Amino acid sequence: MTHVSSMLKTYPKDLGNIDEQKLAACIAACFECAQTCTACADACLAEDSVAELTACIRKNLDCADVCASTGSVLSRQTGNNSEVTRAVLEACRTACRSCGDECEQHAQMHEHCKVCAEACRRCEQACADLLASLG
Amino acid sequence: MTHVSSMLKTYPKDLGNIDEQKLAACIAACFECAQTCTACADACLAEDSVAELTACIRKNLDCADVCASTGSVLSRQTGNNSEVTRAVLEACRTACRSCGDECEQHAQMHEHCKVCAEACRRCEQACADLLASLG
Amino acid sequence: MTHVSSMLKTYPKDLGNIDEQKLAACIAACFECAQTCTACADACLAEDSVAELTACIRKNLDCADVCASTGSVLSRQTGNNSEVTRAVLEACRTACRSCGDECEQHAQMHEHCKVCAEACRRCEQACADLLASLG
Amino acid sequence: MTHVSSMLKTYPKDLGNIDEQKLAACIAACFECAQTCTACADACLAEDSVAELTACIRKNLDCADVCASTGSVLSRQTGNNSEVTRAVLEACRTACRSCGDECEQHAQMHEHCKVCAEACRRCEQACADLLASLG
Repeated sequence: MTHVSSMLKTYPKDLGNIDEQKLAACIAACFECAQTCTACADACLAEDSVAELTACIRKNLDCADVCASTGSVLSRQTGNNSEVTRAVLEACRTACRSCGDECEQHAQMHEHCKVCAEACRRCEQACADLLASLG
Repeated sequence: MTHVSSMLKTYPKDLGNIDEQKLAACIAACFECAQTCTACADACLAEDSVAELTACIRKNLDCADVCASTGSVLSRQTGNNSEVTRAVLEACRTACRSCGDECEQHAQMHEHCKVCAEACRRCEQACADLLASLG
Repeated sequence: MTHVSSMLKTYPKDLGNIDEQKLAACIAACFECAQTCTACADACLAEDSVAELTACIRKNLDCADVCASTGSVLSRQTGNNSEVTRAVLEACRTACRSCGDECEQHAQMHEHCKVCAEACRRCEQACADLLASLG
Repeated sequence: MTHVSSMLKTYPKDLGNIDEQKLAACIAACFECAQTCTACADACLAEDSVAELTACIRKNLDCADVCASTGSVLSRQTGNNSEVTRAVLEACRTACRSCGDECEQHAQMHEHCKVCAEACRRCEQACADLLASLG
């Protein structure tokens, strides 16, 4: 999260009344979750029981895509695109919940699903926190 | 859209009761809009009046990101991730409307904004149509 | 490809001595291949024989990522980033060859791999053609 | 980097003779650089002198795209796609060098370019280190 905050501090214009800490936390959580879901999909592929993990892989891939685009949208402050910011946060929260719920079901069996479920929960919460702070 | 439909037809399992034509149209519209918005942001950058187009560039970039991830999510049929599908379609519709509204304001001045606004409108409509068909 | 060409024509500055037709063809091929590989990975996931297709899915996912980023880089004309353009074209050609080779091995068994191998070959060729035209 | 390493450790199959630490460092650097370049492009947009920063914005956007796709490719270990891994690392190193060189020119004027140049240099080095370790 350090590098996200460092960049936010360099933004040359006023950031408006956004909660800078919640914003930085959410950006960091999105990129972390995108990477973790990409790795979890791949780890699921490498399991002997891959045939039982296809729904999990699909949710991992969707969540990775949505987190990556959400992290990018949140990294932009120029202009006013708050309606879009809200909509992607809602979508990201939904994708993280869906993937987190799925991964939790395999968490006892597969360590990667356990670690991934935790990343999804953190990102889901970070999106909810940022949404709440937007009022 | 041809290649999107070709791939949909090869899906080995039942597609459920999704409207295959609306799905293919929406996937194609998302990828087209992602490319067009990426190109429009770059064309805006190349304008002498770039300083007046910064909000447009930002909306282009957001729209490109959201359309790309939505097109990828829609390209997947495995498992059931319908809540996420709905949420990304809502976000994509919002991003296309926001970008389309902005580009329309520059359409008379800049041909790229005119072409881009049309791509945004098509994608916004394709998302709305697919959402409506999901019931 | 029509919408790619339409946008290229609206670029407000000189495009330099790039072959506009080969550029448009390559951009279109990249986005088409990204979508097709995303769909092929998902179709592989839905096969009963998914356990035998894990290397194919991985190559599909890599190819989709590389084609998407290459298509975006190629959609930008502002400034001079020709060394990067060349490098991503080389990477994209490699990713398409790797994925095309893999999908071809499953083409008789799985129609999606057949359609996907064709998309990879087209994109591999489009990258090679554009690279050659860059001199 | 912690979460990247955590996921790598959960991979269910042998990672081969890849340098796990260099791999984790490179994945982390790619995602960090993708985020930083996205934010730097946006901060450049917000500068009064945006008209002088258009080449920088373009290189930021290219670098963000290439780093994101490289980070995703590197996050996958399944199958053998080493030729693609090498090619994307070469492209990523090139994109980071190009963007780092550009941002350095504005580093005294713009703090975001200074921070971004550092992220580009770290990622360029991480790609070079991983490439060297691949033999």
